[in-house]
Amino acid sequence: MICIIMGSESDLKIAEKGVKILKEFGVEFEVRVASAHRTPELVEKIVKTSKAEVFIAIAGLSAHLPGVVASLTTKPVIAVPVEAKLCGLDALLSVVQMPPGIPVASVGIDRGENAVLLALEILALKDKNIEKKLIEYREKMKEKVYASDEKVKEMFK
Amino acid sequence: MICIIMGSESDLKIAEKGVKILKEFGVEFEVRVASAHRTPELVEKIVKTSKAEVFIAIAGLSAHLPGVVASLTTKPVIAVPVEAKLCGLDALLSVVQMPPGIPVASVGIDRGENAVLLALEILALKDKNIEKKLIEYREKMKEKVYASDEKVKEMFK
Amino acid sequence: MICIIMGSESDLKIAEKGVKILKEFGVEFEVRVASAHRTPELVEKIVKTSKAEVFIAIAGLSAHLPGVVASLTTKPVIAVPVEAKLCGLDALLSVVQMPPGIPVASVGIDRGENAVLLALEILALKDKNIEKKLIEYREKMKEKVYASDEKVKEMFK
Amino acid sequence: MICIIMGSESDLKIAEKGVKILKEFGVEFEVRVASAHRTPELVEKIVKTSKAEVFIAIAGLSAHLPGVVASLTTKPVIAVPVEAKLCGLDALLSVVQMPPGIPVASVGIDRGENAVLLALEILALKDKNIEKKLIEYREKMKEKVYASDEKVKEMFK
Amino acid sequence: MICIIMGSESDLKIAEKGVKILKEFGVEFEVRVASAHRTPELVEKIVKTSKAEVFIAIAGLSAHLPGVVASLTTKPVIAVPVEAKLCGLDALLSVVQMPPGIPVASVGIDRGENAVLLALEILALKDKNIEKKLIEYREKMKEKVYASDEKVKEMFK
Amino acid sequence: MICIIMGSESDLKIAEKGVKILKEFGVEFEVRVASAHRTPELVEKIVKTSKAEVFIAIAGLSAHLPGVVASLTTKPVIAVPVEAKLCGLDALLSVVQMPPGIPVASVGIDRGENAVLLALEILALKDKNIEKKLIEYREKMKEKVYASDEKVKEMFK
Amino acid sequence: MICIIMGSESDLKIAEKGVKILKEFGVEFEVRVASAHRTPELVEKIVKTSKAEVFIAIAGLSAHLPGVVASLTTKPVIAVPVEAKLCGLDALLSVVQMPPGIPVASVGIDRGENAVLLALEILALKDKNIEKKLIEYREKMKEKVYASDEKVKEMFK
Amino acid sequence: MICIIMGSESDLKIAEKGVKILKEFGVEFEVRVASAHRTPELVEKIVKTSKAEVFIAIAGLSAHLPGVVASLTTKPVIAVPVEAKLCGLDALLSVVQMPPGIPVASVGIDRGENAVLLALEILALKDKNIEKKLIEYREKMKEKVYASDEKVKEMFK
Repeated sequence: MICIIMGSESDLKIAEKGVKILKEFGVEFEVRVASAHRTPELVEKIVKTSKAEVFIAIAGLSAHLPGVVASLTTKPVIAVPVEAKLCGLDALLSVVQMPPGIPVASVGIDRGENAVLLALEILALKDKNIEKKLIEYREKMKEKVYASDEKVKEMFK
Repeated sequence: MICIIMGSESDLKIAEKGVKILKEFGVEFEVRVASAHRTPELVEKIVKTSKAEVFIAIAGLSAHLPGVVASLTTKPVIAVPVEAKLCGLDALLSVVQMPPGIPVASVGIDRGENAVLLALEILALKDKNIEKKLIEYREKMKEKVYASDEKVKEMFK
Repeated sequence: MICIIMGSESDLKIAEKGVKILKEFGVEFEVRVASAHRTPELVEKIVKTSKAEVFIAIAGLSAHLPGVVASLTTKPVIAVPVEAKLCGLDALLSVVQMPPGIPVASVGIDRGENAVLLALEILALKDKNIEKKLIEYREKMKEKVYASDEKVKEMFK
Repeated sequence: MICIIMGSESDLKIAEKGVKILKEFGVEFEVRVASAHRTPELVEKIVKTSKAEVFIAIAGLSAHLPGVVASLTTKPVIAVPVEAKLCGLDALLSVVQMPPGIPVASVGIDRGENAVLLALEILALKDKNIEKKLIEYREKMKEKVYASDEKVKEMFK
Repeated sequence: MICIIMGSESDLKIAEKGVKILKEFGVEFEVRVASAHRTPELVEKIVKTSKAEVFIAIAGLSAHLPGVVASLTTKPVIAVPVEAKLCGLDALLSVVQMPPGIPVASVGIDRGENAVLLALEILALKDKNIEKKLIEYREKMKEKVYASDEKVKEMFK
Repeated sequence: MICIIMGSESDLKIAEKGVKILKEFGVEFEVRVASAHRTPELVEKIVKTSKAEVFIAIAGLSAHLPGVVASLTTKPVIAVPVEAKLCGLDALLSVVQMPPGIPVASVGIDRGENAVLLALEILALKDKNIEKKLIEYREKMKEKVYASDEKVKEMFK
Repeated sequence: MICIIMGSESDLKIAEKGVKILKEFGVEFEVRVASAHRTPELVEKIVKTSKAEVFIAIAGLSAHLPGVVASLTTKPVIAVPVEAKLCGLDALLSVVQMPPGIPVASVGIDRGENAVLLALEILALKDKNIEKKLIEYREKMKEKVYASDEKVKEMFK
Repeated sequence: MICIIMGSESDLKIAEKGVKILKEFGVEFEVRVASAHRTPELVEKIVKTSKAEVFIAIAGLSAHLPGVVASLTTKPVIAVPVEAKLCGLDALLSVVQMPPGIPVASVGIDRGENAVLLALEILALKDKNIEKKLIEYREKMKEKVYASDEKVKEMFK
């Protein structure tokens, strides 16, 4: 079970990149909205009551949500920094430069799909079925690259 | 009454720049250590029980402390980003790029003295004595600049 | 009473984010245009004659306006750096990296609403009515986040 | 079992921050040196033959090692960007901005200890003993912060 | 013979800037798609079997492709960092900050044409015909600048 | 007499901001196109034969034109960095970070008008008529700010 | 006559690089200390009463001094951004990104010598003697480079 | 034959990293000092008369030397940006962001050794002996990594 928390409804399009993959994999998940600054008590409630094994926190600007989630659980927390100002550099540095002791796992700016894939890699450690699907997912990506390669090779022959 | 919270004891030298001024002004203050990530409940306890009218939060790296304090109070919160990595740019962006609705007042990197002076400017709005001392403080700064000017003017005559 | 000074008429949309809140709160304010570089004497006149208890200065590029205002008063000065070039990094660093002795309180890039909320938090220290409205304002923000959470939770059920 | 791979022997001090924690936790690990650019075949051999459930890759500059490891396994890969030039910004962006499909979990610059704690959080999902120790580890951190708080509170009384 | 490898089909427009020049010069080339992260074995196959004397690798984000190609050959490898996020700074630093021992020759962000011209300069060292065409190419560029100069000079007379 | 040199015809819109002012002032000028990299001999010819007292060089990317002009004359050289990639930071650093001994006077990114005003300030040192017009120009700017101020003041009354 | 104004006595070493050249050239100058933020009235007094034909303003952090000087005169103003925090990027952007209408001529970070050379180039427009000395100064620099070239050529023969 | 040109004698330590390799390889080379800004005519003379097949240009700050060399020849030009200010970012952007038509091959900041290895890879295209030595050089690097790996593996057993 994976819990995706967005800092604001405006992060929905980033979350959806990941949800699409979760549906393909048939893995249980929930999607929540909770602001670290406007509703810290909601963040706490979600984290403390969720049955999630992995949390994904999506946020922009001074993106504190992943760090706040991480401070409330010893479950792995994955951060997706979102581009809003400064090309997303503010969000990236806010999520990735965590102090010693409270780790957050940052993926790239706006990379909702990679956050979910990372969460699935973590769950795959105890679920062979997910691992099998991850390997298939990679195979399909490979096939697409090979198809692109064939197409482009021909284009310039 | 001003409450200075540091994210870690290592920020002490930044806090001390401000404490020195507070002692000169004879304004009541407390200095606390509480990590937004390691001890969120201590941050909450301090903010909820403090009699402070203004909070100063000092932190480096993914500096979430000022934002966390601001999420817990409607009192003014002043942030001092501290240089630890990336010349302090990570801390600056983490404290200053707050989302709409929860303001934080950022001063410059490592500027503990300016955080305290800003807090005093706020308190001065209802304490004529502090306002008088602020004006004197500025006068003394002016005098030092004038003295430097005299000295340097002579040096190159 | 809050005085909002813009460096140029082009900053109007940033100021308006804050004005909207000031009208909701029913707090007295004035909005002025004065360029630190083109009309330093007008900046000085405004600051020296205004009855404002808090100044908000909005400027882009080499954004000197907040610092100039701060050099003319011991009232709290809040800076809003505006994005014009370099994603607003030039304006942010120009307003926030003030030297020791003359504090400026910077909010995030283009965050006119947070500047006003910070000013209101300051005024609330001596006006229980504003404090009450700030608490209500936060409650409304919370409600919006809870509503988003309900909506998004359903969307992915 | 955790496999730590450094891009160069010069990253040893970063790895050691994590090793110290692994020894405290009594979790099995191996430490290897393999350069993504000088010895890609050694990286491949290590990743393909290791029994690790989680990989930690430590590298500076154009830090490709974590991405290369991630391309060879569906096990979770944690990246530690190392400061060598440009304050470590080059390494951070090289590890964190991974393209869609191949996730890497980045921690902060030089944060070897957080990489290991994140790996332990992942392993804790199927090992209650590790989870218990993580909770204890956090408790100890909390105690240190509380002790700092007591000390500093007294210092400025 | 020049081999252009793109990390993804989306880099086609950057490759085409260079292909146009290669066609003008009548120099043999191939264009391939191979992802360093999704299909490392395809990258290896292309590099190990290509008859290319110079490789051009085009990639964005954590742009590892040029470094991976360089790790597999002692032929010159030219990198074109592509703008996708952060104005292309992530790709630039990922390709240019290579560790000692494995060189990559970086051109500017999105500069597919310069990558090809650099490759042609290299091939010209043993092909007088290419050298002649490079000199003619530069002459044509000069003529365009002179024509612009005449036009603009007149415009403001 | 002022000589404006653009690195490429694409910089025309930046030059025109300045030309407009030069026409208002009735000061003699010429506008040229010459690339430091494609036509260094044309740059040299222009600089060595021009009767200009001040040179303005406009260029983007690795903007070497101002430095090349400065290496060929002891007349003042003003640089206008142009935004093409990286928000213009590449051009700014390329023009402003000149080594000791060969100065270049940089204005802001895309600031063609300020380059011309700076050139006019220089010429005004020996032409009272230009000085008079500069003072009038500033007066007109002041008037516009005062008019904006009146307008905005009314708007929010 | 050249007027060098430093924002603080701590900028003395940067000013001295330029003073050394001014003494060699035998050009009249004065060196002053005046802070844009602490003593705006002193800055105004210096600028309004100085007989300088060119002003050089040296400042770090939110370096407003050059812009403030420029707002008070139509004489050319040269800025020297000083490295204090953020490698001097804050000071550079604060001085160079001036809004339309009030130009400032920025030289590189800590480049006090280039500021003076630029000022001398400006004065040379009406003083043939300075022009002659500038040409000699450049000749001496050339000779040093030629000597270095001879030395290094031999070293590796 | 390889020609290494430094912008200043202070770049000697960067050049020496490469010279050491050239001596090992027994490849003919010359080392010169010529400043693009102080001695453009010397740069031109060196480039126009050198028998070099590849040029390496080493420079810091507004590093124009590589671009100036490239404007004078159709031989491959390799740039080494040198860290002097801003962590070398100024030099990197000055050398790498060349406009279309005049390519420069940039290696990493201070990477004199990689510049030489790249030059050798280019020369190896027509000199089997150099190619053989490059392969040996890589083998030796590999061996060092393997030795490090053995050592570190043991250290943590």
